[in-house]
Amino acid sequence: MLEQLDLTKKMSKKECKERMAVLEPELSRLQRTLKAEKIPVIIVFEGFGAAGKGYQISRLIRALDPRGFYVHAIGPESEEEKMHPFLWRFWTKTPAKDQIAIFDRSWYRKVLIERFDQSVPDQKLTPHYNEINSFERQLCMDGAVIIKLFLAIDKKEQKKRFDNLLSSASSAWRVSDDDLKRNKHFSQYKKICDEMLEHTDTACAPWTIIESMDREFASVKIYTAVIEAMKASLRRKSENEKATASISTDPLPASEYSDSILRTSSLQKVDLSLSMTREEYRDQLKKLQKRIAELHGELYRRRIPVIIGFEGWDAGGKGGAIKRLTERMDPRGYCVYPTASPNDIEKVHHYLWRFWKNVPKDGHIAIFDRTWYGRVMVERIEGFCTDAEWKRAYQEINEMEKQFTQHGAIVLKFWLQIDKDEQEKRFRERMDNPDKQWKITDEDWRNRDKWEEYERAVDEMLVRTSTTGAPWIIVEGNDKYYARIKVLRTVVEAMENRLN
Amino acid sequence: MLEQLDLTKKMSKKECKERMAVLEPELSRLQRTLKAEKIPVIIVFEGFGAAGKGYQISRLIRALDPRGFYVHAIGPESEEEKMHPFLWRFWTKTPAKDQIAIFDRSWYRKVLIERFDQSVPDQKLTPHYNEINSFERQLCMDGAVIIKLFLAIDKKEQKKRFDNLLSSASSAWRVSDDDLKRNKHFSQYKKICDEMLEHTDTACAPWTIIESMDREFASVKIYTAVIEAMKASLRRKSENEKATASISTDPLPASEYSDSILRTSSLQKVDLSLSMTREEYRDQLKKLQKRIAELHGELYRRRIPVIIGFEGWDAGGKGGAIKRLTERMDPRGYCVYPTASPNDIEKVHHYLWRFWKNVPKDGHIAIFDRTWYGRVMVERIEGFCTDAEWKRAYQEINEMEKQFTQHGAIVLKFWLQIDKDEQEKRFRERMDNPDKQWKITDEDWRNRDKWEEYERAVDEMLVRTSTTGAPWIIVEGNDKYYARIKVLRTVVEAMENRLN
Repeated sequence: MLEQLDLTKKMSKKECKERMAVLEPELSRLQRTLKAEKIPVIIVFEGFGAAGKGYQISRLIRALDPRGFYVHAIGPESEEEKMHPFLWRFWTKTPAKDQIAIFDRSWYRKVLIERFDQSVPDQKLTPHYNEINSFERQLCMDGAVIIKLFLAIDKKEQKKRFDNLLSSASSAWRVSDDDLKRNKHFSQYKKICDEMLEHTDTACAPWTIIESMDREFASVKIYTAVIEAMKASLRRKSENEKATASISTDPLPASEYSDSILRTSSLQKVDLSLSMTREEYRDQLKKLQKRIAELHGELYRRRIPVIIGFEGWDAGGKGGAIKRLTERMDPRGYCVYPTASPNDIEKVHHYLWRFWKNVPKDGHIAIFDRTWYGRVMVERIEGFCTDAEWKRAYQEINEMEKQFTQHGAIVLKFWLQIDKDEQEKRFRERMDNPDKQWKITDEDWRNRDKWEEYERAVDEMLVRTSTTGAPWIIVEGNDKYYARIKVLRTVVEAMENRLN
Repeated sequence: MLEQLDLTKKMSKKECKERMAVLEPELSRLQRTLKAEKIPVIIVFEGFGAAGKGYQISRLIRALDPRGFYVHAIGPESEEEKMHPFLWRFWTKTPAKDQIAIFDRSWYRKVLIERFDQSVPDQKLTPHYNEINSFERQLCMDGAVIIKLFLAIDKKEQKKRFDNLLSSASSAWRVSDDDLKRNKHFSQYKKICDEMLEHTDTACAPWTIIESMDREFASVKIYTAVIEAMKASLRRKSENEKATASISTDPLPASEYSDSILRTSSLQKVDLSLSMTREEYRDQLKKLQKRIAELHGELYRRRIPVIIGFEGWDAGGKGGAIKRLTERMDPRGYCVYPTASPNDIEKVHHYLWRFWKNVPKDGHIAIFDRTWYGRVMVERIEGFCTDAEWKRAYQEINEMEKQFTQHGAIVLKFWLQIDKDEQEKRFRERMDNPDKQWKITDEDWRNRDKWEEYERAVDEMLVRTSTTGAPWIIVEGNDKYYARIKVLRTVVEAMENRLN
């Protein structure tokens, strides 16, 4: 989840102030409503050191009635705490049904800081993730709202903030040797964080990434996330009261903002001006295709399966990229599966069934032209599945891809990004060219009308399903040459990495 | 789940025939209804070798329209299957929405037979359990009914059946060397089965144990379990159609039979005539109390925590047993927590919160006079919680106790069993004895009226929450001397086992 971020997001003090003037009273009001409805709230602040947890907590509680919340600062375990199961100190701190508990660091210490310090052995990790998920599920089923915020900054910014703190005697104590160590090995610690996010981003207690390079922006996003989650809990409660036997564990994912600046992925920041000359393209294409053919043979020999998915805007260049990717591959060793709307047989099975059927065997390559992500894009937007269905699909898809990678597969997912103008240009070309007219239908134009809706769904998809084992690669697609070479190069690198 | 069984259950051919005359047409009818409602059904047959899986499957399908089901016999993985993620061969066999898939052995091979054969390394076990639970949860959320049957026989019966098969040339091929090996190491294989049952007995896909020493009995129980689960799925579907946004993952657990013979635990078989003379009692009590005091010191020194829970019928002898257990313990090292109905503070927290607060620290002993099992007994019966709440509590409680044992605790749970006559005798004694009158209230008499209902709840509790790490011990309680000594001896043995 930390790979597809745009950390440079900013907000002017003025805009922040204006938004806060709305958000603060809204939060106050919601605190009172949830208290009356007896919905306990748990807010978890995690993230990189010096990302501003303390500052943001102070800012958040400004809007809250102090009789209704408690802030727990979670340090290393005391001797007493060590003599209990690890969640004991958190179970005992769960809020009463009319209270808000705010955690400045939390049970995630165990799988972040303590893991980095190597005081948690690897074989304990999966059990700890399971314990954490069970803890949150139990509270959530009992009616609690769990809001988990991960404050992200980059290595350089962290170093700058540490240096700043260290430069003054009054604040130097706030930076520990361990902080500096985690800064030095930032990418290693980031990977630990990313793994944690993947394992614990559940339907009942999802994570929200807070881009925290800019304090104003972060405050607004935190307020919005907390408010959205509280509102969702009220909706859920009123629905459940209608259907007492059923319990929904699917809150509205917090990243689903209509407000585009608050979205999480770096999609909006993609540099679509990237391009390549025809000569360079030809030259690179030849080299990369040759290299892929070699690597394909080696993967076959070593029995490593490869799964490559292509998604993107209509006319984004999926077909062209797939063609160049496979052009010089041995056809006995790969298969391209185009994904259309499900047929009658597929419709009477689980939506993932048809993809499971086409999982490549060891040593083979399966390329999917459109994929299982249809669930969280077209099916979501067109209402072909229920809200609960697409909301739980992120976890289901991550679980499926995890099984592929655990089995040893290389899994890559490409998102071919173009802008709306480029799409229109390509649509018109298709209509004008008799050889390409089959590629364009009325449906394409209709989908185009829903560009904004798709953008929101794509944003959420990229963040929630970009995992360390099965990453999304955003491909700048306005220039086809550039895009194709980026796809091929990414595939080559992934194969080489695995083989070494 | 395999510890508290009464495998001797039998049914006459006549009774079986009479019941089948009702059950078979009922199953046929349900097959048609579920087909029309587009509810896919998955029936898993697992269990010990020669427990009768083949026979019972043939008997089950007798009632079914052959166009509507498919039987999959799951053997070792083929070379082709080995070259895919392990669930691939099962995903591709999931039934269409108007079909029934019956599995003669299943994905559980991986964590049973293959684990026993040591072809699955220990560190892969938890990931495999997680994959299995995710697989079943995904199908279940999609509307499938998953019925998992575990056919149990004992070692001797298995040997007899193997010998029988081996004695004839026409059937000898059915017994493999591996079968004989699992018979030879029956208790080891049983432990593997028990661990599997604990990890995969979930609210959405619970296990039903089928006592299979007697074929007639087993057939009736299988039919009943399948029918109950199918009926529950219809109820769930109609509820969900009322509340489309919510998804209930809690089917009616299959063991909740009104018909007492079909219940699973060995509670009804307990020999309440067991007793002990006063002299023997005094002699043993003295020795055991002394031993407990010694062991207590050693546990303290080695920082091992102990959690002991007492449940049982009113006037079952909990107080007396606890008194003898603690009489000679160092009071600084243990604490007895009586559990009454929750107070105001406790009521506004999760129902497990008050027990988490009293988790003993390492080296200490916590004794609970009534426990967290109130959720699945009194709260269930008196309607103090919803159906969904007590149904999911089995898993929640198992998860909690697992955290205790993972942390290193010894966890024991005693069920003090007396019969209805003995209870009445004790109630009357209490009423007649001025010193004991405080122990008896109108509520006790009212609970007594619900004896049958409690019996059903206790049966289900004993089966679903008897785990390898935190077993239930049924104590024959009509004779107080016998009962107290059994409690003390069990505690001593558990402590000695841990310390050695």
